[in-house]
Amino acid sequence: MNRMKHILFTLLFLLSIKLSAQTNTMMIRLSEIEIDSCYLQEYNSILQSESKASVQIEPGVIAIFPMYEKENPTHIRILEIYANKDAYANHIKSPHFLKYKSSTLKMVKSLRLIDMSSIDPKTMAEIFSKMKQQNH
Amino acid sequence: MNRMKHILFTLLFLLSIKLSAQTNTMMIRLSEIEIDSCYLQEYNSILQSESKASVQIEPGVIAIFPMYEKENPTHIRILEIYANKDAYANHIKSPHFLKYKSSTLKMVKSLRLIDMSSIDPKTMAEIFSKMKQQNH
Repeated sequence: MNRMKHILFTLLFLLSIKLSAQTNTMMIRLSEIEIDSCYLQEYNSILQSESKASVQIEPGVIAIFPMYEKENPTHIRILEIYANKDAYANHIKSPHFLKYKSSTLKMVKSLRLIDMSSIDPKTMAEIFSKMKQQNH
Repeated sequence: MNRMKHILFTLLFLLSIKLSAQTNTMMIRLSEIEIDSCYLQEYNSILQSESKASVQIEPGVIAIFPMYEKENPTHIRILEIYANKDAYANHIKSPHFLKYKSSTLKMVKSLRLIDMSSIDPKTMAEIFSKMKQQNH
């Protein structure tokens, strides 16, 4: 029984190292964007297409979650999670990102890119696991 | 073949209404919190326990994802997603939330709660589906 316990703890320990290594390479970003109100609908539509394509096509784009402030719909926030720095470098060279960037340039009044870290990287998978159950 | 197509389109249409109804009741919030640097480690540890418990115990807590700004670790951002307003009302009455709230009150320098909407509610499940694959 003690031997089994020992094996179990060793496995759990190795698994936690693996998870930690994976999540430590992740790049998390919050983008804060203010949009010229004249272009709001058009901007949202372009951003929606771009974020959808990125998640669907690029294996290294873990999530791109675009939101707007209910009280100020021109204030956009995007939570972006990339598998690693290379995934981000590839993303900003992708045709859909370049199309988004060039077509929305005139619509953006301000842009702030904030690099973030997860407070609890080990449970990131668990944090978002209910999202799938919710919609299916 | 046309009949099959018609049935398929009807099913897809009904599914999209169901998804839309579910995601429309969701409550999305970004909390922006500044912490007194003296308490940072202690605060992060309490927040980590609280957010983990909320996701594990409360079915209506879809996600609580706590992050900090890399350049300003005292600047905390939390992405919170609740199934609906009732789930949020239950959450703020839960023992783990009340414990978090009372024990961190003195540590919080400022707090801003921003109600958000998803720009693409229909693909929210898809947006976060890779998170699970990433860590397993």
